[in-house]
Amino acid sequence: MNIKINKNFDNLSENYLFSEINKRINKYKETHTDANIIRLGIGDVTLPLGKSVVDALVKASNEMGLKDTFRGYPPEYGYDFTKMAVKNYYSNFNVSLDMNSIFISDGAKSDLGNIVDIFGDNPIYIPNPVYPVYLDSNLMSGRNIKYIIGTKENNFLPMMNDINDKNSIIYLCSPNNPTGGAYDYEKLKEWVDFAIKNESLIIYDSAYEAFIANDNIPHSIYKIENAKKCAIEICSFSKQAGFTGLRCGFTIVPLELESEGHSLNKMWKRRQATKFNGVSYPVQRAAEAALSEKGISEAKYNINYYMENAKMLSELFDSKGIYYTGGKSSPYIWFKCPNAMTSWEFFDYLLDKANIVGTPGAGFGTFGEGYFRITSFNTHENTIEAIERLKKIL
Amino acid sequence: MNIKINKNFDNLSENYLFSEINKRINKYKETHTDANIIRLGIGDVTLPLGKSVVDALVKASNEMGLKDTFRGYPPEYGYDFTKMAVKNYYSNFNVSLDMNSIFISDGAKSDLGNIVDIFGDNPIYIPNPVYPVYLDSNLMSGRNIKYIIGTKENNFLPMMNDINDKNSIIYLCSPNNPTGGAYDYEKLKEWVDFAIKNESLIIYDSAYEAFIANDNIPHSIYKIENAKKCAIEICSFSKQAGFTGLRCGFTIVPLELESEGHSLNKMWKRRQATKFNGVSYPVQRAAEAALSEKGISEAKYNINYYMENAKMLSELFDSKGIYYTGGKSSPYIWFKCPNAMTSWEFFDYLLDKANIVGTPGAGFGTFGEGYFRITSFNTHENTIEAIERLKKIL
Repeated sequence: MNIKINKNFDNLSENYLFSEINKRINKYKETHTDANIIRLGIGDVTLPLGKSVVDALVKASNEMGLKDTFRGYPPEYGYDFTKMAVKNYYSNFNVSLDMNSIFISDGAKSDLGNIVDIFGDNPIYIPNPVYPVYLDSNLMSGRNIKYIIGTKENNFLPMMNDINDKNSIIYLCSPNNPTGGAYDYEKLKEWVDFAIKNESLIIYDSAYEAFIANDNIPHSIYKIENAKKCAIEICSFSKQAGFTGLRCGFTIVPLELESEGHSLNKMWKRRQATKFNGVSYPVQRAAEAALSEKGISEAKYNINYYMENAKMLSELFDSKGIYYTGGKSSPYIWFKCPNAMTSWEFFDYLLDKANIVGTPGAGFGTFGEGYFRITSFNTHENTIEAIERLKKIL
Repeated sequence: MNIKINKNFDNLSENYLFSEINKRINKYKETHTDANIIRLGIGDVTLPLGKSVVDALVKASNEMGLKDTFRGYPPEYGYDFTKMAVKNYYSNFNVSLDMNSIFISDGAKSDLGNIVDIFGDNPIYIPNPVYPVYLDSNLMSGRNIKYIIGTKENNFLPMMNDINDKNSIIYLCSPNNPTGGAYDYEKLKEWVDFAIKNESLIIYDSAYEAFIANDNIPHSIYKIENAKKCAIEICSFSKQAGFTGLRCGFTIVPLELESEGHSLNKMWKRRQATKFNGVSYPVQRAAEAALSEKGISEAKYNINYYMENAKMLSELFDSKGIYYTGGKSSPYIWFKCPNAMTSWEFFDYLLDKANIVGTPGAGFGTFGEGYFRITSFNTHENTIEAIERLKKIL
């Protein structure tokens, strides 16, 4: 065969982070067969779905087996009942959404990857360190990528001083994966004002919004005046309600967003109608249930459980005087590797001395080097045991 | 805002087919309030899921509510149990698939849309008429599109005489939506030989494979020698097992496919790992069940039900001496509009004189003009009633 392939794929680095982690764990296990390894590397929820979500899933599954209640193709943009659940959820924090601005999908990762389809060749600004999908999906499209840098100096909350283009696309992730940093009202207002002034677009990833536990941090960029004129928000049921295994998310493309005479809302609508066929009916019923009063309270229980872990871990770093971000309003703790170790050196050290697995910060961008991410998605028992071990080696 | 949008969207025609159909129906209903309209336009299954599929869905849903059986992120390419089910299904018709060549997804439409991501700018050959996603997804990427034409002369089974490029990407859909035409072994071998000789790639949409009821028609392009060197196959659980509302499909990218020194399998793997996060666990369990012996036999029952409708409809057109394709090995019947009517003229005529809704052929491409699609996805009762009405007006 001799067809042209997308050469931009050559610019992607091998996505080896988690395979490299597993390789090192397996190698370690070979010579330490009875090691009791605690995994604090996982970026995935571990607690089961709430009862009201499971009940909704089961009910909808049974409906699909009956002639009178069977449903075929779902609407490409989501059932009205799911969109209404999202609209009501946002109204809890006083954000009013137009039903036509809400697009239900199979997850925030899909939307973050696919949204590039509707744009031309703009300067792209991406936080460093950050969740790798923004970078990789733009590299695949051959985009011109620049960074907004997170450092100790800005508490891993990069602002606009690295930006020297007008008319750019800016990715923000708040609360941030992996650093746990979250923009407060004041900082987010600076971003919105900057985007408006520079006629730029913000793509705002709010997947960790449900972990926010501070009144100064907005749950949605649309809490900021004028944000509907400059921002797309992408969110997920994954971390809010433990949907990582069910697959459901949503994207808000305000009707106000226009560029070059085109409505971005209409373009995303066309993209989704062409290359997507909607989310599974039982999963949408589960999502609806997750945003009901009962569903939210069940989810809160799980989130509080994780946040107790985060609190215990934070206290350890506080007591050791080690610099970290996150741990509040985020399930992640991002800390400086001791003794000027690199991320991977610390990974090996932690595995060997404490039988704990975490995630090297370098896996999230060059400015993650020298940092490390651990997560609170584990049991209290394991977290407490991990803290005891960490006390001895940090 | 002033960012660059993807200007290729301007080349898309408004996706108005089904909205125009609904508009005309609603207008008709205004003045004919008691009309008993029968919908033969629907391209969607109507019978409920089989018992074994629903049982698997419910069981997996309950697992998600328990600590010990909860599952988080699924593998991006599908669980091994789903891939194994596909592998075993293909072995039923003596096609051997490498597990790493199978990618489970949320549906054939997503894969058909997203596969464009891995290619460069090649000549694209698309059947006309055909399912519109091939055209629209390539237009969005600004590709150079040409057609292979279906006509009465080739029984709407276009061959390679319209192709005057080497190194092109050729879409084939068999059994075809909307024409119901299906390539037999001989014709498909011609296509594979042609692709090999011209170093081209075939993207083979086999979504309607389960309707094949003729030993001369292959269920997979990989029944043809050398096809693994020149073809990607995209298939779905939607029509096989009624999964339109559950969302599951799969794509086979053989390990043998290489171009410009790149493995297409590895490229698709990277694309999916970056922009997709796998299929819902309960849906994958349902898919596994759908391909079990019991699941296949339940699906067969539904397919036979639809095919009885198709047979009755075919007999009507046979008796009237009206030219048509499909009706055998396909749920669709594609026929020439009587009295040289255009597709939309016949749509209005059919709605007015017989209160039957179908789909104008012009909606599937310029060479669909003057033709019309009706489907067998309805009850026996409605189909029989529709045939009585059609008898009077055709």
